Formats: sequence, C-alpha cells, structure tokens
Amino acid sequence: METTENKNQRKLEVCYSPDLFPVYYTKKECVVVVIDVFRATSAICTAFEYGIGQVIPVATIEEALAYQAKGYIGAAERHGEIVEGFDIGNSPFSYMNPELVGKKVVLSTTNGTQAIEKAKQAETIIIGSFLNLTAVCEFLAVQNKDVILLCAGWKGRYNLEDSLFAGAVADYFDGSDVFTGIADSSIAAKHMYQAAKGNLNEFLINSSHRRRLQRLNLEKDIDYCLQIDITDKVPVFDGTGLNV
Amino acid sequence: METTENKNQRKLEVCYSPDLFPVYYTKKECVVVVIDVFRATSAICTAFEYGIGQVIPVATIEEALAYQAKGYIGAAERHGEIVEGFDIGNSPFSYMNPELVGKKVVLSTTNGTQAIEKAKQAETIIIGSFLNLTAVCEFLAVQNKDVILLCAGWKGRYNLEDSLFAGAVADYFDGSDVFTGIADSSIAAKHMYQAAKGNLNEFLINSSHRRRLQRLNLEKDIDYCLQIDITDKVPVFDGTGLNV
Repeated sequence: METTENKNQRKLEVCYSPDLFPVYYTKKECVVVVIDVFRATSAICTAFEYGIGQVIPVATIEEALAYQAKGYIGAAERHGEIVEGFDIGNSPFSYMNPELVGKKVVLSTTNGTQAIEKAKQAETIIIGSFLNLTAVCEFLAVQNKDVILLCAGWKGRYNLEDSLFAGAVADYFDGSDVFTGIADSSIAAKHMYQAAKGNLNEFLINSSHRRRLQRLNLEKDIDYCLQIDITDKVPVFDGTGLNV
Repeated sequence: METTENKNQRKLEVCYSPDLFPVYYTKKECVVVVIDVFRATSAICTAFEYGIGQVIPVATIEEALAYQAKGYIGAAERHGEIVEGFDIGNSPFSYMNPELVGKKVVLSTTNGTQAIEKAKQAETIIIGSFLNLTAVCEFLAVQNKDVILLCAGWKGRYNLEDSLFAGAVADYFDGSDVFTGIADSSIAAKHMYQAAKGNLNEFLINSSHRRRLQRLNLEKDIDYCLQIDITDKVPVFDGTGLNV
C-alpha cells in the first residue's frame, strides 16, 4: 500500500529541535504543537487543569520581570532551577495552588517558551504533554490543517521524552486516514513510542534530561509528567498568552 | 546503573539534520561521520571499493563545473536525478566502471555533499554507509574522540534511512565501554535500528526518500545501498578531497 506525496494530503511531521522549525514551517495555515514534557508544557497543562486564568510565555527573563512588575505571577526556570527573584519555576506541582485560580502567570523556561517563541508566526499553536495527550489528538483530528509536532528539546538538541510524546500522537493516528502524508520523522517517533509505551519511565531511564532532573531531586516531577490523560485541557496561544 | 555526565567521557551523538550541526559541534577535536545512505555516501564508498583515486565533494554545481573544466570526472545530482552537463550522478552503479580506476571525481549532491560542507571545520570527517558499517565502527573505536553521526537528511529534514544507519553505529557500540556519554539522540537511533535490523528494506517501505527513488525507478539502487559490509574502505576528508 504505497502512498505518494500529494499537495492535498494532510501532513503530520515531527520537528525534533526548535532550531529546525524554519525547515518545517512552510505555510502559516498549520497547527504547531509545542512539546516540553520535562517540564514546561506539563506545567502549563497542569496550571489550566487547576484553574489558572492565563499563561504568558516569554523568551527572556527581562520580559518575565516586566510582566511581574505589572502584577503578573512570575515563573521562570533556567537549567532546571527556579530563577532568583521569581515565585515559581516549571514544576507542575507549583501550579496546583488554590491561590493561583483565575490568576495570570508569566512564564519563561530554558526550552519550552523558546520553542513557542520560534513558532509564533504559525496560525495555531497549542500545548501538548502526556497529561493532555488524547485531548491534543482530538483537537488535531478536527482541524483541517497540517501539523508540526515541535519538540522543545534541550538547547537545540534532540531529546527523548519530547520525541516520545510526538510518537504517542503519531501512534494515535496510526491506521486512521486523518493524516495521509507520511513523514519520516513521524514514522520514527511512532516506532519509538510503540517500543516504549508499556513503560515510559523505564524507557527514559538513561535519558539525559531525566538524569539532569534526578540530580536536582525532581523524581516526583518526572513520574507526574509521564502520566497520560489526566486533563482534557488544550491550551491555545492567542498571540500573547495561552488560554483554554 | 546510572551514568552521569562528565567531561572525560567520549560522546556518541546523532545530529539528525545538517542544519543542526552548529548545535552539536562544540569542539574541533571530534570525528564527524557524514551519512547519506540514499545515495551519496553509498556511492562514495562504492567508488573507492572499485578503485577510484579521489572524490572532491563540492556544495554547488558551479564548483563542480569548474573542476570538470580542469579535467576531473564530473558527477552531480539534484532531486534524485543527474544534472545536465555531467557524466554521472550519485547512483553507486555508475562508480563500478573500470574506466574510473585511479581517476579523480568531483561530486555535488542535494544533501550529502552539503552535509560535508557544513562539517568542514571538524578535525576528522569520514564517510559512512551500510556498505562500510563495520569498517566505520572500527575506525571510530580507535580514535580517542567524541563522535557526531551527521545525517544528511532531505533538505534539512529528518530522514529514516540516515537515522537507521546512525542507529546501526549506536547498536554496534551498545554494551561496550567505548562511548560512555549517553546521548538521547543515539539511544533513539539505536532503538529504531534494533526494531529494523531484521529487514531494513521492509522497515523503510514507507520512507519518503525510498518512495521518491521508486518513482525514479531506482529500486536497484535502494537494494544495493541497504547491503551491510560489502567494503572495508573508510573515505577520509583531507580538507579538499576524500581519500582512502
């Protein structure tokens, strides 16, 4: 059953690094799913599940400070740790706080918010993590657009957990006719997810970011972020902030 | 058995696109393996197996024409086809010609020679393909350097066959202590190769480049390029040309 390339096919592609985004971004009419499993996009999904009002993702600490000065809750992480002068970082647990319900948060992280910055020109940008996997797939299914699964990676490098999530999306659509443009990147991610899906935690045991978080005593965050479908919220970017 | 990151470890990383090379290239003292399975690096390995004297890889058609005018055999491919005005393209079969023994060839291709161009600053650049897999691994084992497996991809995009070859190298070193710096990119490639190694051809059945070559009636080239270890030649770049 051979599929040929055709301009009318909907494509599902995985972009393994924000630095490659310009290669994959060929037209404004597409959906970009930003993925930073450990931990920015998991934290954002959690924030909305727990009732936060809005999340403003910004690339720099300076922008985050400016928003914080205007009364926003300030959240910033670099290299896995909370940046001095900010209330919270990107641990999902920080967002399960009743005091944050309805509040606006500004967030800057090492990789995740940088990826959103790179994708800003796209028509639709949403936030994906294992926590909202099925909700993301259902959202994608009803859009009549090509999809770029944008892995935040680690400082431009490929990473395993974001690629695995991309594979989970490719696996969801495997055998369906929603996406008929077969991309090598999604074939590869799908195979990896299919090998890992019985035990994501075990599969990631040697991943670089997991080891980095372990050194920071963030095992609890890892376990939390690898849960599937604990929320049906799909945060959507409106040009300035993320909302549900 | 946890491995921590450490400056004395030798790293084996996969760079899935030439556009990401600047992210992975952190010091001159490294070995870059340039990989373009369909078909540039398979053709180069074949050329040396059949006794060619030297291959000069160049990025542009203009440079190739200039070398051709100086008496070099001209080889150029774009989008899978021989460029007008050149004797040969990048089909490995073109290089099994007794008339080419000892001759110098200039070669420009869509992806492979562009990848060599990107890697030019590195101390050591070699050419890898399934055809010389074990020879490449044995070469890497005795260098005391970090290794970047540079997939030529397709116009900056991830591709399956180059990633599979990178996975074959990672698989070769799996369980050995040659490379102790575990990179996410090589873990992912290794898993994919381990799933595919019984039947590479079957695994690649839906890969984009395979479909592209099938449309050009190049099935014979595909089968040829997926053979493992038919040569022990390892072409090394000397700053201008490739030699063995």
